[in-house]
Amino acid sequence: MIRYNNPPCSQWDAPLARPKVKQHEDVRDRVASIIDRVRSDGDKALVELTRDIDRVELAAFRVTPGEISAADSLVPQELREAISRAYHNIYNFHNAQKQTPITIEIQPGVECSQRTVPITSVGLYIPGGTAPLFSTVLMLAVPAKIAGCSRVALCSPPRKDGTIAPEILWSAKLCGITEIYKIGGAQAIAAMAIGTESICKVSKIFGPGNSYVTAAKQMLSVSDVAIDMPAGPSEVMVMADETGRADFIAADMLSQAEHGTDSQAILVTNSPELALRVEQEVAKQLGELEREKMAQASLDHSRIVVLEDQKDMIDFANSYGAEHLIIAMKDADFIAGKIVNGASIFLGNYTPESAGDYASGTNHTLPTGGWAKSFSGVNLDSFVRKITYQKITREGLEALASTLEIMASAEGLTAHRNAVSIRLKKEE
Amino acid sequence: MIRYNNPPCSQWDAPLARPKVKQHEDVRDRVASIIDRVRSDGDKALVELTRDIDRVELAAFRVTPGEISAADSLVPQELREAISRAYHNIYNFHNAQKQTPITIEIQPGVECSQRTVPITSVGLYIPGGTAPLFSTVLMLAVPAKIAGCSRVALCSPPRKDGTIAPEILWSAKLCGITEIYKIGGAQAIAAMAIGTESICKVSKIFGPGNSYVTAAKQMLSVSDVAIDMPAGPSEVMVMADETGRADFIAADMLSQAEHGTDSQAILVTNSPELALRVEQEVAKQLGELEREKMAQASLDHSRIVVLEDQKDMIDFANSYGAEHLIIAMKDADFIAGKIVNGASIFLGNYTPESAGDYASGTNHTLPTGGWAKSFSGVNLDSFVRKITYQKITREGLEALASTLEIMASAEGLTAHRNAVSIRLKKEE
Repeated sequence: MIRYNNPPCSQWDAPLARPKVKQHEDVRDRVASIIDRVRSDGDKALVELTRDIDRVELAAFRVTPGEISAADSLVPQELREAISRAYHNIYNFHNAQKQTPITIEIQPGVECSQRTVPITSVGLYIPGGTAPLFSTVLMLAVPAKIAGCSRVALCSPPRKDGTIAPEILWSAKLCGITEIYKIGGAQAIAAMAIGTESICKVSKIFGPGNSYVTAAKQMLSVSDVAIDMPAGPSEVMVMADETGRADFIAADMLSQAEHGTDSQAILVTNSPELALRVEQEVAKQLGELEREKMAQASLDHSRIVVLEDQKDMIDFANSYGAEHLIIAMKDADFIAGKIVNGASIFLGNYTPESAGDYASGTNHTLPTGGWAKSFSGVNLDSFVRKITYQKITREGLEALASTLEIMASAEGLTAHRNAVSIRLKKEE
Repeated sequence: MIRYNNPPCSQWDAPLARPKVKQHEDVRDRVASIIDRVRSDGDKALVELTRDIDRVELAAFRVTPGEISAADSLVPQELREAISRAYHNIYNFHNAQKQTPITIEIQPGVECSQRTVPITSVGLYIPGGTAPLFSTVLMLAVPAKIAGCSRVALCSPPRKDGTIAPEILWSAKLCGITEIYKIGGAQAIAAMAIGTESICKVSKIFGPGNSYVTAAKQMLSVSDVAIDMPAGPSEVMVMADETGRADFIAADMLSQAEHGTDSQAILVTNSPELALRVEQEVAKQLGELEREKMAQASLDHSRIVVLEDQKDMIDFANSYGAEHLIIAMKDADFIAGKIVNGASIFLGNYTPESAGDYASGTNHTLPTGGWAKSFSGVNLDSFVRKITYQKITREGLEALASTLEIMASAEGLTAHRNAVSIRLKKEE
């Protein structure tokens, strides 16, 4: 971990820099070819790609109701209870995000409204890998269901034995999702974005994935489907003063570091003593981790930045725009109020990032890589759209007419002006 | 205009098809080269590109305070008053979209909140061309200001004499925007997305443009900047029954058609008589338009679709997902309630699309090309982000701990579990 001592803001570029993620040319080329194949050959391409990439021979991709029910007995009761509690909290927080319609009379006879409607058809992608990411199922499926999306499809890569992890199936079922496909990678994204004989096209795709999945989402978002947000390596920033606990902070930084070698953890503190103690604690706790090697690699681009002025700490945090921001400071609430760039904020010494990752109720699908300056994390809004309405009476249009006609004429749009004038012409 | 009589839904593909917009390879190549030049040479590239593309030699891009004040006397008073009335309506409707923060105690000691913050730095693009699109200035700048974006930059191409149309400057000033640059095309998008010596980077770019602008927004949205939405040719769908007025509907379809040769206007009606009368009215009104040629070209891919079942009409409209949807029907409100795919809806015979284009209060920056199934039009949300917060007490964490630990273990994330356990360890 590199340490910076009171760098002047003209020299923040280095401590603010994120790990470079290079999208290899060959990833884009391979993904483009996968997309082309799915577009032209549909299901046939999916069968072939699953055989070649996942090394699984599947006759049908849809998970059967039998497989979904079977998950009940395959997930330990203790885990089912934990997932259910998390579900409950996530449900309550996202349900509180519902918005009421707006209607206002802008001027007599001119009424404008705005109403929230669900995106009718959405697709969720849940990556495979060594451990099943059932928590991401909850984070995406719960708000989709609250929003009222009438169709929620879920794709996840088949394991070597042609199944999907029971934790994923059980969590999906808990959220009321039964349209589940054993397809992974870029081909899953392409299938949902474009549609095949057996998988209908969706309007928006959510969820994390490897570099192929990310490239497919990006490429298809230009032409075929909306996506949740740009993806990138996970990151945490911890802001701490002398009230921060070095052992807690080290644990938080390591829990970020274990996500992957390109994860980043940054501590910003006005306490040089704390900086030192955190460094020692990280070294101590690192040895106890199952994923020690991965965490070690990630720590190579993690940092400790000492900034003695609290205002500088805030500016630094806003310049970074962290996915996860832990504020372990006396005035945590006050500081949080000054943060405008950031996605999910954890206040005080007893709020570890793990809480938000799993079960406090907030979402864990969050913008990374500085995108927290322009994107929100996934929330109920992500699954809805807003439609606006206007209803104008003849009298209302009369009052608005000259404004419309003058503006349309000044923009050179005669037919726009005419659409107003024709309505107000005296009947012959 | 092609006419379809009661096509069964299995044959809706043709009447639902949108004009093909082919992005030429050479547009992408030229835009990629412009982006590269701006990225490596900054202002120098902007000077050269403006000289080569706009044929204007500029020493400085920033519009001066003097130029902005001078606009006062260059915009006719009548137009200033019209713009001010439109501003007022747009302001009131977007101001009504403000959201209150949410805070809930998820379980004792576990508090989750969500708060809306402005995107700190945004860029608006206003195209040049024959007529100055000052209405788009209002549609983007008003919600940006209400949202509280601390920096709003605006780029618009210089005219041959090196100025920007006074209508644009005056509208920008009305909205409190003074950071205005005389730069157009892909180079303007690149400058705002990447930043140069004289133009600071923004976090999100809004606004319409030609195929170069659109390609630049798409390409930079993968790596550098968020964008408002995918762009495409404008479109209107009119749903009408026998209460619809053929002359009004024809005027609305033509006001769409005059936008450009690839615009599309579709009438869906359960009245064959109305269909016939609209066809006649379109032919009659077409001859009276200044932009007759453009409108004629657009009508080549416009359509009249007769569907005698009202439910089919609704399904058809939802399958299309129109940018603008005019509902000239007896039960307009009821029908509108059944529409889930669409962006801006106009109810009744006296609500022309022109009203929403200029001054009813709703926004005119809307998703096209079917993106109204996944994107909202620009609204206050477009200029804000939502941050989530969690604050947990020691007691709250104790109650949540087993859930977090069980889930983290099941996902194989030891350090995530440890970040919880370490906080609850008995003090030694």
